[in-house]
Amino acid sequence: MNRLEEKTIQTKELFSGRIIRLQIEEVELPNGKITEREIIKHPGAVAVIALTDDNKIVMVEQYRKALERTIVEIPAGKLEKGEEPAVCARRELEEETGYVCEKMELLVSFYTSPGFADELVHVYIATGLSKKENAASLDEDEFVNLEELTLEEAVQYIKDQKIYDAKTVYAVQYLQLQKALEQK
Amino acid sequence: MNRLEEKTIQTKELFSGRIIRLQIEEVELPNGKITEREIIKHPGAVAVIALTDDNKIVMVEQYRKALERTIVEIPAGKLEKGEEPAVCARRELEEETGYVCEKMELLVSFYTSPGFADELVHVYIATGLSKKENAASLDEDEFVNLEELTLEEAVQYIKDQKIYDAKTVYAVQYLQLQKALEQK
Repeated sequence: MNRLEEKTIQTKELFSGRIIRLQIEEVELPNGKITEREIIKHPGAVAVIALTDDNKIVMVEQYRKALERTIVEIPAGKLEKGEEPAVCARRELEEETGYVCEKMELLVSFYTSPGFADELVHVYIATGLSKKENAASLDEDEFVNLEELTLEEAVQYIKDQKIYDAKTVYAVQYLQLQKALEQK
Repeated sequence: MNRLEEKTIQTKELFSGRIIRLQIEEVELPNGKITEREIIKHPGAVAVIALTDDNKIVMVEQYRKALERTIVEIPAGKLEKGEEPAVCARRELEEETGYVCEKMELLVSFYTSPGFADELVHVYIATGLSKKENAASLDEDEFVNLEELTLEEAVQYIKDQKIYDAKTVYAVQYLQLQKALEQK
């Protein structure tokens, strides 16, 4: 096995914004050569597979400026500074959908784009949902439409590229896998 | 349903690197207010679920500077300018693993981080693998170790957080789903 580590020689921060920071890291490669890595620092995020009692998947339609279009996603959001992921998951679910839940369990965590970013997403599954009166509201720059989909509808949304992001494609496949395992 | 679109008022490019570009977009929200979006532009990428004839999944261990650690991933790489994704998939598979394949099929495409980046990953499945003599070699700043895992080993790698990125977690779950459906 080859040694793979890249040693940092120097880090330059080129931008620090509301959400992301951009760093250029000068690194020494395993063969001794020098190169630069373009790195985005991100606070991390949560995403929630929220299932209603009649087995619908709670989703939000949201405009994504990076894509210049709306897509349909499971509820998700960035971690506030120092915030526990499980707390963030309950907060985002309530803010984006008006639902609170009895049970919130961590399923898996994954890096979204390890080639250039350190964004880590924690995926939760929420059950025992109920609508909350006077639920916490969205951030002032967030606008979403609520959708509640059957698993079959969600699979069709992937084919139609209405669902089009990694965490939501993962979430739908997770539910397909659970269904297939139950039926065995 | 609410209108969700955000209109661009002005775009400023703050950085243009080898891989990513950073833009700040001043936008008008659906309620008429003005805000800024931090957007990373990325050329897009491919990833390949490559299965050997004895049903092993071909993976590469790679150091990811953004994470300051190695992780084990399915072979993947960025699209060159104007490159067809299917051509890129064959190129990256050969460069990173030395394998060529008879069959390369598109499974799904997804955006990795729609909140701040336009990176779209096309996930392929490759079968009919054979090792190529004098295979195309890695980029000069790429260093990887090849691993061939059973599905059970890959599932354990996710639990151990050796496999830790969205596309590879998706890929392993895809194979779990196919296996569960076959056994029904």
